Amino acid sequence: MLKGIAASAGVSIAKAYKLESPKVEIVKKEGNPAEEIEKFNAALEKTKKDIEGVKERAAVRLSDEELAVFDAHLMMAGDPEFAAQIVGMIENDKVNAEYAADTVANQMVAMFESMDNDYFRERAADIKDVTYRLKCNLLGLTIPDLSAISEDSIIVAYDLTPSDTAQLNEYVKGFATSIGGKTSHSAIMANSLEIPAVVGCGDILSAVNHGDTLVLDALDGEVFVNPDEETIKKYEAKAKAYAEEKEALKVLVNAKSITKDGHQVELAGNIGGFKDVEGVLKNGGEGVGLFRTEFLYMDNDHFPTEDEQFEAYKAVLEGMQGRRVVVRTLDIGGDKKLSYFTFPEEMNPFLGYRAIRLCLDRTDIFRTQLRALIRASVYGRLCIMFPMIATVKEFRDAKAIFNEEKAKLIEEGVQVADNIEVGMMVEIPAAAVNADNFAKEADFFSIGTNDLIQYSMAADRMSEHVSYLYQPYNPSVLRLIKMTIDGAHKEGKWAGMCGAMAGEPYAVPLLLGMGLDEFSMSATQILKARKMVTSLDKNEAAKLAEEALKLATAEEVLDLVKKAVD
Amino acid sequence: MLKGIAASAGVSIAKAYKLESPKVEIVKKEGNPAEEIEKFNAALEKTKKDIEGVKERAAVRLSDEELAVFDAHLMMAGDPEFAAQIVGMIENDKVNAEYAADTVANQMVAMFESMDNDYFRERAADIKDVTYRLKCNLLGLTIPDLSAISEDSIIVAYDLTPSDTAQLNEYVKGFATSIGGKTSHSAIMANSLEIPAVVGCGDILSAVNHGDTLVLDALDGEVFVNPDEETIKKYEAKAKAYAEEKEALKVLVNAKSITKDGHQVELAGNIGGFKDVEGVLKNGGEGVGLFRTEFLYMDNDHFPTEDEQFEAYKAVLEGMQGRRVVVRTLDIGGDKKLSYFTFPEEMNPFLGYRAIRLCLDRTDIFRTQLRALIRASVYGRLCIMFPMIATVKEFRDAKAIFNEEKAKLIEEGVQVADNIEVGMMVEIPAAAVNADNFAKEADFFSIGTNDLIQYSMAADRMSEHVSYLYQPYNPSVLRLIKMTIDGAHKEGKWAGMCGAMAGEPYAVPLLLGMGLDEFSMSATQILKARKMVTSLDKNEAAKLAEEALKLATAEEVLDLVKKAVD
Repeated sequence: MLKGIAASAGVSIAKAYKLESPKVEIVKKEGNPAEEIEKFNAALEKTKKDIEGVKERAAVRLSDEELAVFDAHLMMAGDPEFAAQIVGMIENDKVNAEYAADTVANQMVAMFESMDNDYFRERAADIKDVTYRLKCNLLGLTIPDLSAISEDSIIVAYDLTPSDTAQLNEYVKGFATSIGGKTSHSAIMANSLEIPAVVGCGDILSAVNHGDTLVLDALDGEVFVNPDEETIKKYEAKAKAYAEEKEALKVLVNAKSITKDGHQVELAGNIGGFKDVEGVLKNGGEGVGLFRTEFLYMDNDHFPTEDEQFEAYKAVLEGMQGRRVVVRTLDIGGDKKLSYFTFPEEMNPFLGYRAIRLCLDRTDIFRTQLRALIRASVYGRLCIMFPMIATVKEFRDAKAIFNEEKAKLIEEGVQVADNIEVGMMVEIPAAAVNADNFAKEADFFSIGTNDLIQYSMAADRMSEHVSYLYQPYNPSVLRLIKMTIDGAHKEGKWAGMCGAMAGEPYAVPLLLGMGLDEFSMSATQILKARKMVTSLDKNEAAKLAEEALKLATAEEVLDLVKKAVD
Repeated sequence: MLKGIAASAGVSIAKAYKLESPKVEIVKKEGNPAEEIEKFNAALEKTKKDIEGVKERAAVRLSDEELAVFDAHLMMAGDPEFAAQIVGMIENDKVNAEYAADTVANQMVAMFESMDNDYFRERAADIKDVTYRLKCNLLGLTIPDLSAISEDSIIVAYDLTPSDTAQLNEYVKGFATSIGGKTSHSAIMANSLEIPAVVGCGDILSAVNHGDTLVLDALDGEVFVNPDEETIKKYEAKAKAYAEEKEALKVLVNAKSITKDGHQVELAGNIGGFKDVEGVLKNGGEGVGLFRTEFLYMDNDHFPTEDEQFEAYKAVLEGMQGRRVVVRTLDIGGDKKLSYFTFPEEMNPFLGYRAIRLCLDRTDIFRTQLRALIRASVYGRLCIMFPMIATVKEFRDAKAIFNEEKAKLIEEGVQVADNIEVGMMVEIPAAAVNADNFAKEADFFSIGTNDLIQYSMAADRMSEHVSYLYQPYNPSVLRLIKMTIDGAHKEGKWAGMCGAMAGEPYAVPLLLGMGLDEFSMSATQILKARKMVTSLDKNEAAKLAEEALKLATAEEVLDLVKKAVD
């Protein structure tokens, strides 16, 4: 038996599929530049095609958001600067193509890894992934095709790359890896795909042979290799119990989200595009609380046209069949860049030119999106919200542009819904503190907790040195949330939340108690949240929240909630 | 008559001193590397000595804070990487030293200037300043020595570099420059030195000859060249009136800061070191509201020892003769770096590892400072405050370390004051929102408006793309200030402010109305603020603040205050 970290819940029993990717050994040789460049170009073309193929196969199971990793890889492989550096080295140093590719990639990886934050580490992982594929192609090595697995299997590997996890199909009943943690890429992907996973198992590749029977207990983080009959029976029972618990949640798919004392809220899903709509409905989502439109821009080589956007919004609105769909206008900048647009160099991009700030500056981009949205409004129940609003003036300016475009479209004879709600994200402290004034002008609020916490604490959660300050349960954060909800209610408006916090077990009672009207989360969290809401009493939750708001520290708040809920 | 921008108030009449710095022309030549390197090393040594000389002469008039620019220049000139690059170019390209120096410097300047923010632009200005001096030394050109001016003069120049302004002595009655704006370095320096200045006058060098009589009206931004008798008389009267107004303020030096209805507040000064104490006292400061100890660390090549710090704190406490001195513990990181300490690379340094976060991580550095402070406490009335506190737990941790060091010192037999107050900066939104809980543990608050506004708005004021969001009069900011003051008073504690806002004419009535107890500002602002306080009615100010807190935008607040005050 091997111990590891339970990274994605579930219990599976199946045959081991040992993923052993070819070892790449790079030897420096002298090369004929013309020949090596030709070899390199061919391998790079093949690499791009391979990635496109992987993306296509993965598209069957993955959402647009999850597929975005391949766009990053394609962009990387297609980066003329990357190719030029390798070609330049082949020419100047007269070396073989694989040596040049390896050297250039290693330099880039070293640079990104030396930057001490998650964003750059991800970029380093992308380069490694793409270059590995490129080197295999140069050396004629074949990368195993996980999407070809056709019998029930548990994958055993040193680690899974983003390309690997994206290829997992329905025969993959789980995976166990040597390295990784709860927040590693593979763990996040496993959760999203609802595949049981145990990571950080150490030298599992030596302990397991291809075809061994494995029991994967991803509830307690244990892996059993060729276990006896008794163990298998025990874990079959455990798997069954877990499946039943999941099944029990399914009866809640069509249930309403009503507390024991009759208070109803809305549980909605966050989406990145049309592909995610099905997951929201399957998991009982009562609406879409956050449609992140930036993927329309990021997975693209140009600003999407009005018509392209119109089709995308129409598809989602129709898909949601009259349920509320909250669309966030372009939230780009910070760590989200576009390949075809140059952002200004800023010392602190999180405090910089992004989201509504960019849109109010580049109103051409903003107007195109608003027109597409307004045109799509007749196909469902549309709510529009502006990200990163800090001042009432900004909201007024953005709303005025919306009104102008709406009036123009009506004048042009375009059919337009008359019930479009126009609201805003509350993710900047200034907005929360001034919520009562904002509520006089906005139709609704949606609290973005990731940024709200980050700015309230003045701590970049991407920086490991200050990530301890990312405290959703800090009384300051709770107070800002409370001000936002109270501000909305004072003017008869509704307040939602579309940050990670909305689906957290200990947060739901507090948020419910503070009066939150809408909770938007990953589709897979919705049913659990509904179970929680239906088991709670709104009055008691209100008392709990009131007490929590008086406390001094996050630790004290968590203790209080745990005592009440557990 | 030439029109310009009035950058530092005052009216002067004096002879023109035309500052014409030598034109440096760089010609690329072939050079003997050994000879050129020797030439370069000699010129670099002379450059360092020149800067040290300028700093020494400037030290007579300037505060430590203002002298810091020379430390930046010395650090730059002493940077082994800078010298190595130039020497490398001389060796590899066999070029003359001045060409190599010019080329390397231009590359660095271009890099810094392409980064679109003030901090890097300042670094670019430093490089230009130092390299100019270096090139003059290489070419045998003499830079005019402004500190040698020995008769009343108004300097006329294209622009003044930091080195230039730092050399201005008591004979300089003002200056007029071709370029520059209200926030340019020379404008800030002129204000600090109380020298009238008109900047952005265009081609003033062609219009003025050395020795011309000039009238410099730095109230209305006008410069008259060789004016007639009548004009001179008129401006002599204007200069006299302005001087009398300034004189009138002087009677307030020893006055108390009491409103018409008898409410007393404290008006204090911000300092960077002992040299600034005299200015605070001369301008009627009732205490020091902010002693920025980071200069002890930044103007140094090692972490200052306990004894070095003890002497510095003792000098300030003694100098302030029993008045309250609020010392801020080390606030480093963000854009403030040390030459002898490596900060982690972070994507958003303003949201990163800095100030108390660093001190709670590197308690060795923190304990040394606290010990020095506690030892100095017997020489005056010491208040200690921690910067960048976000959570109550951080305050508790910092206070606990203070208590440990205090107990140790007492055990070691060291004399320690028993009235040291331990408080905190309120400059992070989370702290303002939770002020009532903080006030149970902190002895006082000091609101740092620069950072508080920056974080509340999630906008880096260094980035010109979002600097419109730096809004001291935004109701959100005012509400956070109000929460802070109310939180303090609820627990019987006092609340001060040490940000730029504390001395602003339209802010003072609002802050007074919200109940602020202490206002700390640049020494030169104190008397004007006192005049304002003594002319206000606390009750009316409270009503004004109450109204302002209900408004929606900064524009509305400013309109309200202007109507009430002007």
